[in-house]
Amino acid sequence: MFFNRLLPKEPKFFPLLQKVANVIYEISDLIIECVQTHDHSSAMECFRRIKEMEREADVLSTRIFDALNKTFITPFDREDIDHLATRMDDVIDNINSCAKRIALYNPKRIPEAALDMAHNLKDSAVYIVKAVEELNILKHSQENIKKYCDELHNLENKGDDIYENFIVNLFEKETDVAEIIKTKEIMYELEKATDTMEHVGKIIKTIIVKYA
Amino acid sequence: MFFNRLLPKEPKFFPLLQKVANVIYEISDLIIECVQTHDHSSAMECFRRIKEMEREADVLSTRIFDALNKTFITPFDREDIDHLATRMDDVIDNINSCAKRIALYNPKRIPEAALDMAHNLKDSAVYIVKAVEELNILKHSQENIKKYCDELHNLENKGDDIYENFIVNLFEKETDVAEIIKTKEIMYELEKATDTMEHVGKIIKTIIVKYA
Amino acid sequence: MFFNRLLPKEPKFFPLLQKVANVIYEISDLIIECVQTHDHSSAMECFRRIKEMEREADVLSTRIFDALNKTFITPFDREDIDHLATRMDDVIDNINSCAKRIALYNPKRIPEAALDMAHNLKDSAVYIVKAVEELNILKHSQENIKKYCDELHNLENKGDDIYENFIVNLFEKETDVAEIIKTKEIMYELEKATDTMEHVGKIIKTIIVKYA
Repeated sequence: MFFNRLLPKEPKFFPLLQKVANVIYEISDLIIECVQTHDHSSAMECFRRIKEMEREADVLSTRIFDALNKTFITPFDREDIDHLATRMDDVIDNINSCAKRIALYNPKRIPEAALDMAHNLKDSAVYIVKAVEELNILKHSQENIKKYCDELHNLENKGDDIYENFIVNLFEKETDVAEIIKTKEIMYELEKATDTMEHVGKIIKTIIVKYA
Repeated sequence: MFFNRLLPKEPKFFPLLQKVANVIYEISDLIIECVQTHDHSSAMECFRRIKEMEREADVLSTRIFDALNKTFITPFDREDIDHLATRMDDVIDNINSCAKRIALYNPKRIPEAALDMAHNLKDSAVYIVKAVEELNILKHSQENIKKYCDELHNLENKGDDIYENFIVNLFEKETDVAEIIKTKEIMYELEKATDTMEHVGKIIKTIIVKYA
Repeated sequence: MFFNRLLPKEPKFFPLLQKVANVIYEISDLIIECVQTHDHSSAMECFRRIKEMEREADVLSTRIFDALNKTFITPFDREDIDHLATRMDDVIDNINSCAKRIALYNPKRIPEAALDMAHNLKDSAVYIVKAVEELNILKHSQENIKKYCDELHNLENKGDDIYENFIVNLFEKETDVAEIIKTKEIMYELEKATDTMEHVGKIIKTIIVKYA
């Protein structure tokens, strides 16, 4: 087993990856707040707090990178941890970018679909936290990781549905082209975050498959 | 050679991957039909059939995943098969998503460029089927896989050209912003499918290069 | 070390990858010129020169692929070189596609933000050239590659900022929907090139981490 093999020697990666997963969870919680703001200054304040979390995650990434360079493990374990950490960082970047767009574009109205999407992100974040846990459990089950990946896949599909229904409704409720494009760009970024979350699940599944 | 090494022991992956490649071919055929529908109910019916194929492919993915977990092969063969299967699934998701958009957005007119793009997808699907074949042939040639990848690259470029000419023409033929955005979102997804198909070819090439 | 291990036996990959990095640098220089053109014929001429470079890079890719097939190296070194070469080629494709859009869409006015983005691309290209150098240096430092990747990450963030400020300004300066969409598509492709450049840096970092 992957981290089982490593843990006796090197317990440092697992807690770091777990911390990044927790940042994903917390930042998903904040984006729920962010899409519910009604004025520019609270959107800016929300973005500021999300940006702070993104910086925290950058510090964790640097620590993972440094630990990889100082730890004696095989090239392939190294590559897998690096790959996973990189993609978890992408999730955080997507959500940060979404908050930035809300703050910057200052749309007249954030669509309700954005709140559905943000809740969907938080649901996905729960499964990422669980999937990362699987890397540590002594007798981790193939069944569990498969289940979490299926859930992430379903949530990604649900994200697609939310996005597409949003597009359908967009033209009925809004006629101002600037507003249409602004909200579309915000929703696009939220949808991309769901994609990246599914991708994180796939990487963990691949690692577990590889070392099965 | 990759599957040559595996085949004597484990013949199960190759037929499964071949089946996924066939689903890509058949779903490409259906999307040609889908972009030629003139009313909402036939678009919905087309989407329903494409969705069915997408579910069929999901079943194949699960079988590949289960076989990977029960089969004694090296971590790296395991990882390669997993990677390839995942990306072939992405192609199917892209095409499914495109059909869903046509059904949902219900555009007044599907642009002719969508038909060109769908034919282009089917041409790419032919090379994916051929490229997957190369994983099995006893004395498979580097020349063949290189040729198929070149063809997929050319078709991807052709897809880009179709997309870009569509954008140029879009503003001359259509003034309704809702219609412009709807058809653009449909064309974007078709173009993304071509990209993913080229990517599948690259993965197969990488596998063949790796085990050359 | 990666290329240290390889170089005594096989010096051919490093100079080829270096040449591709140089094409990235030169094509970034040309896109600066391209976004400053004021008439259709000079945009077409610029695109023609960029297209020529893209073809030159294709020849280099083919030579790398052929060398990989004729050279005795481990499957994993093979895979890493292939992965890096593929992604560098993507950068060149992104920039080529951007020039093609400028030539084809023939927008009334190329936004100033496109020039900022093009300069940002050239800054990123400098770090890609440096990062590729690190693959060869006898006692290459983890510190250097980390620094270059941080710079590429910062430049990617700066690219995001340029893109998002461009969107904000877009609706204040332009009311013609066709022009809005055309310039947005051009800017989107430039921003994607910055993303891909950061990705190239990450691949080089992963290779260096893997063989540390």
